[in-house]
Amino acid sequence: MQNDNILLAQLNPIVADIEYNYNKALEFLERAKKDNINLVVYPELFLLGYPPIDIIERYPLIVEENIKYLEKFAQQCSNIAVLIGFCEFNNLNKGKKYFNSVAYIKNCKIEKIMRKSLLPVYSEFSEGRYFESAPFDSQNRIIEFNNQKVGVVICEENWNDDTFFKKPMYQFDPVKILVEEQKPDFIINLSASPTRAKKEQLLNNMLSHCAKKYSTPILYVNQTGSTDCITFCGTSRVYDKNGELIARAKSFEEDYFVVTPYKSKINRIEPLPKGVEKTLNSQKEFTLDYDWDMERSYLTITNAIKDYFNKNGFKRAVLGLSGGLDSSCCAYLLACALGAQNVVGVSMPSKITSTQSKNDAKELAQNLGINFFEIPIKDMTDASKRTFDNVFEQIQEKWGEFRYSAPLTFDNIQARSRAMILWGISNEFSSTIPIATSDKSELYMGYATINGDMSGGFAPICDITKTKLFALARWMNKNAPIKNAIPEAVLLKPPGAELAINPKTGKPLLAEEALMPYEFLDEVIWRLENLQQTAQQMLKERFLYEKRHSITLEQKKAWLEKFAKRVQFAQFKWSIMPPGPIVDARSVVRAEYIQPITSKLKF
Amino acid sequence: MQNDNILLAQLNPIVADIEYNYNKALEFLERAKKDNINLVVYPELFLLGYPPIDIIERYPLIVEENIKYLEKFAQQCSNIAVLIGFCEFNNLNKGKKYFNSVAYIKNCKIEKIMRKSLLPVYSEFSEGRYFESAPFDSQNRIIEFNNQKVGVVICEENWNDDTFFKKPMYQFDPVKILVEEQKPDFIINLSASPTRAKKEQLLNNMLSHCAKKYSTPILYVNQTGSTDCITFCGTSRVYDKNGELIARAKSFEEDYFVVTPYKSKINRIEPLPKGVEKTLNSQKEFTLDYDWDMERSYLTITNAIKDYFNKNGFKRAVLGLSGGLDSSCCAYLLACALGAQNVVGVSMPSKITSTQSKNDAKELAQNLGINFFEIPIKDMTDASKRTFDNVFEQIQEKWGEFRYSAPLTFDNIQARSRAMILWGISNEFSSTIPIATSDKSELYMGYATINGDMSGGFAPICDITKTKLFALARWMNKNAPIKNAIPEAVLLKPPGAELAINPKTGKPLLAEEALMPYEFLDEVIWRLENLQQTAQQMLKERFLYEKRHSITLEQKKAWLEKFAKRVQFAQFKWSIMPPGPIVDARSVVRAEYIQPITSKLKF
Repeated sequence: MQNDNILLAQLNPIVADIEYNYNKALEFLERAKKDNINLVVYPELFLLGYPPIDIIERYPLIVEENIKYLEKFAQQCSNIAVLIGFCEFNNLNKGKKYFNSVAYIKNCKIEKIMRKSLLPVYSEFSEGRYFESAPFDSQNRIIEFNNQKVGVVICEENWNDDTFFKKPMYQFDPVKILVEEQKPDFIINLSASPTRAKKEQLLNNMLSHCAKKYSTPILYVNQTGSTDCITFCGTSRVYDKNGELIARAKSFEEDYFVVTPYKSKINRIEPLPKGVEKTLNSQKEFTLDYDWDMERSYLTITNAIKDYFNKNGFKRAVLGLSGGLDSSCCAYLLACALGAQNVVGVSMPSKITSTQSKNDAKELAQNLGINFFEIPIKDMTDASKRTFDNVFEQIQEKWGEFRYSAPLTFDNIQARSRAMILWGISNEFSSTIPIATSDKSELYMGYATINGDMSGGFAPICDITKTKLFALARWMNKNAPIKNAIPEAVLLKPPGAELAINPKTGKPLLAEEALMPYEFLDEVIWRLENLQQTAQQMLKERFLYEKRHSITLEQKKAWLEKFAKRVQFAQFKWSIMPPGPIVDARSVVRAEYIQPITSKLKF
Repeated sequence: MQNDNILLAQLNPIVADIEYNYNKALEFLERAKKDNINLVVYPELFLLGYPPIDIIERYPLIVEENIKYLEKFAQQCSNIAVLIGFCEFNNLNKGKKYFNSVAYIKNCKIEKIMRKSLLPVYSEFSEGRYFESAPFDSQNRIIEFNNQKVGVVICEENWNDDTFFKKPMYQFDPVKILVEEQKPDFIINLSASPTRAKKEQLLNNMLSHCAKKYSTPILYVNQTGSTDCITFCGTSRVYDKNGELIARAKSFEEDYFVVTPYKSKINRIEPLPKGVEKTLNSQKEFTLDYDWDMERSYLTITNAIKDYFNKNGFKRAVLGLSGGLDSSCCAYLLACALGAQNVVGVSMPSKITSTQSKNDAKELAQNLGINFFEIPIKDMTDASKRTFDNVFEQIQEKWGEFRYSAPLTFDNIQARSRAMILWGISNEFSSTIPIATSDKSELYMGYATINGDMSGGFAPICDITKTKLFALARWMNKNAPIKNAIPEAVLLKPPGAELAINPKTGKPLLAEEALMPYEFLDEVIWRLENLQQTAQQMLKERFLYEKRHSITLEQKKAWLEKFAKRVQFAQFKWSIMPPGPIVDARSVVRAEYIQPITSKLKF
């Protein structure tokens, strides 16, 4: 019996685990057959998993395997049609090794192969490294479904409309060509599109715009799950020919999502993560009210943790608990993602650590229900200090003029002794990895210790600025599965690494004393990442910070210069940060920003 | 007075240090004026510096500055013509932000701008991330010089000849179009082409082939110097219309290189690094005789070290000396690159360290004349061990079933205590960075300790396999500016980390006992990188190793399986390796291979 129902198979593949992806695909296929579904659509490059990055360049056997499984999968498609993404060898006499392709399978036969024409090469995308861009042949992009003409596009091919984007990135617009030449009844888009702050706004407006402009419904299927730094939210959807959203799948989980291109009872609309809806019409401006992005950020990070652990065979996480905001938030996110029993928090006080900090760490651990141990590091730092005194004396005889008098070295011994304990635990217990707790504001400042707090197997909050992290902490206290885990004291005390004493106050040095106010810093980061403003421009612009606090132009200039100097220095540290989830619209995460350390930054 | 002399300005720029590059260019320009040179040719993207990678995407001010300096430079060009690479804004309504362009300046006027049409996006190249590929307009590529027509191409545009490459990477061949449409009297190529093993062979044969095929001389100018992992050898050259090499500049240094497209007295031919000439006709096969690549490897690494230090403002290096091959070679290379007085070698014996090792380390340091200290780590490792015993007991109560009984944890405490000392010295003394001493064979095996020997500011030998490193050690003893620095004992003893005792022998565990024979391992790496062979194919192929040693098929299979398993696990470690020079034809260096940690490798 023919009907208009189409299954958008919103699934979570594993890169290069072809058999796993095949079985995932098969599971939904079998269910679809039972439900009398006539067409099943899988995400872009689904059999291979997205993003493969350079492994297919190095290990072509993986691609051979995905071809084998594609053929095996076709055998399963009796009485059903399928669109599925896979990686194809480029057997032509020119061009890169592979095509990013879609197979159209009908009644056990691969009827058509469609090759992606627009290949993203920017930020987290590197498809041009091994895929050849194919000429766009609109006729080849048409399949028949219930006597209707269906046009097929692959992800980026939908992102080049010159009536939507001020400066389209590519030279031609596949959707325009497809509609003008073939007049399809509706369009299907197979995607693998990562989540980022305010991207839902862009995607929604862009797809809606196209559907309306061409009076043609668009069905969009996206994958879910994470690979290293990149997380896909799913949120597959349908726009009708008026550009109205008539169906939307769940976000951040797999979904067996049956839709039609027309308004119909089967089309369900799942809610977006709370707050995201608000951003659909919001202006692009910096704000300290992060409500609109809390649930999405939380889901991005917890999903990234889950998949990094599950897909790589890790089971347990171990981290230092300082009683500060960064480690508290990391512990919170880990407990929610992995289960409290799989998290070990270790309080590792030194002589600078306050009783309050120790108590806060303990209280947090108790609230979360994670394993907790307190291990003083005095014995280790004393031994290191004794050894160092000896080393430094000797070296000073040769290099005396170059010796600093600052106490930085001992400050760092503390951070490195702690990391040594965490890596020791990771070595001693199976499938256990340490967590790097650095946040985005501190990474920009290079305010993290190499082989210390910056060190670990995964860095959950490396793309969350400090002011946003405060908001996230409060949000989790209220909304996470475990409630009120972060003690109020942690949220009230000003951040500080408790590694050094401020000689002016005689108390532990606060981060804002060493750096600059986080509200100001985070705004500089935001302006740099989102508006690409120069320091000169920032000097002229009135900061949100300046509406709240009165500062002189000299002060502002001094902070901007400090920022420039520290960012230049921080490049090296970014290059050896462990992977962590991209959350913001822009980031310094390895998967997105390839920095030349040897260079002269200027902004 | 007109003559045919052209200056190929083989210079070493700094990425994004526009003023520095401008001054470099100016210096050669002034000298050329005095020498009555009529045309000066600078390398690709010279004013900006190559490779900029993502900073121009983030900091457009740098590009504005390079435009400003281009205009300023044009003002200096009275009575002289110049071809110079720079970064141009793409002000068209489509495409990426920038063009990779060449300005033709004559008599203080920018007469022409030429935009690169073929943009490399593979291994260490990422031009497609921010450059737009321009249509190739042959007429715009012609300049007039002494009544001759000169065709201009930019680097990659020369690399797509379908009579030379079996499968050209791009859809059209700019050189072919240029010659057929414009019939230039000779061609000038502005390049920024990194050095790699056997690349001279490819470049030489390719340029010679093109010159001969089109009966058109080719003048090729290349930059020199290093940026992070990438090193340029210079070696600018001229082929006459018969494809014969008639001029070649120095390798691995700047050169004021005056040439003509014709045989003439001013054309000098500098020698290649010793041995490279041999590879010009050599077959592509694995060998343990590395003579052909010793001097080039040495120059690549020492230049990379020099530029990483000089361009980033570092002055001193500190490294651990174990008395083993890796650290000995690193110390050797550092002493030659930075001067012995700027290197500190620290012997940090533990209870496992043999007297022989301690003596070897000391002897090496004396031979090199570097600063040397011996600092036992017992006090630190004892303190860590005491602390850990306490931690592990506590955690075992919760996670007992997951505890390993292996002594890995303590082994690693030694490596991490050593790194802590090195980073401490780096913190205490200005402009000093620690050196990561891991070699390529061990990196493939994941046989390096995170926050231990893998940790540092630069990793000089991360692209040198162990068997090649033995050869390099012997070569340096004979040929480096400091002779015979590595004691014969270091070259004779089998490699081992001296972190653990082999329970079978009661002696320190040797690397080959823990892994597999290095001769076999290095051949697997070579076959994987250069031939992309699968394990199945390797099982069938007769290894060079098998000609020397008799092994069973089971043994071979077991080693290959071990290799596969360890490489999968090593992905994470590669992602947090500090930068180090690319030397081989393929590498796992960050600048070249973007690996997804979350994946299932299969080969």
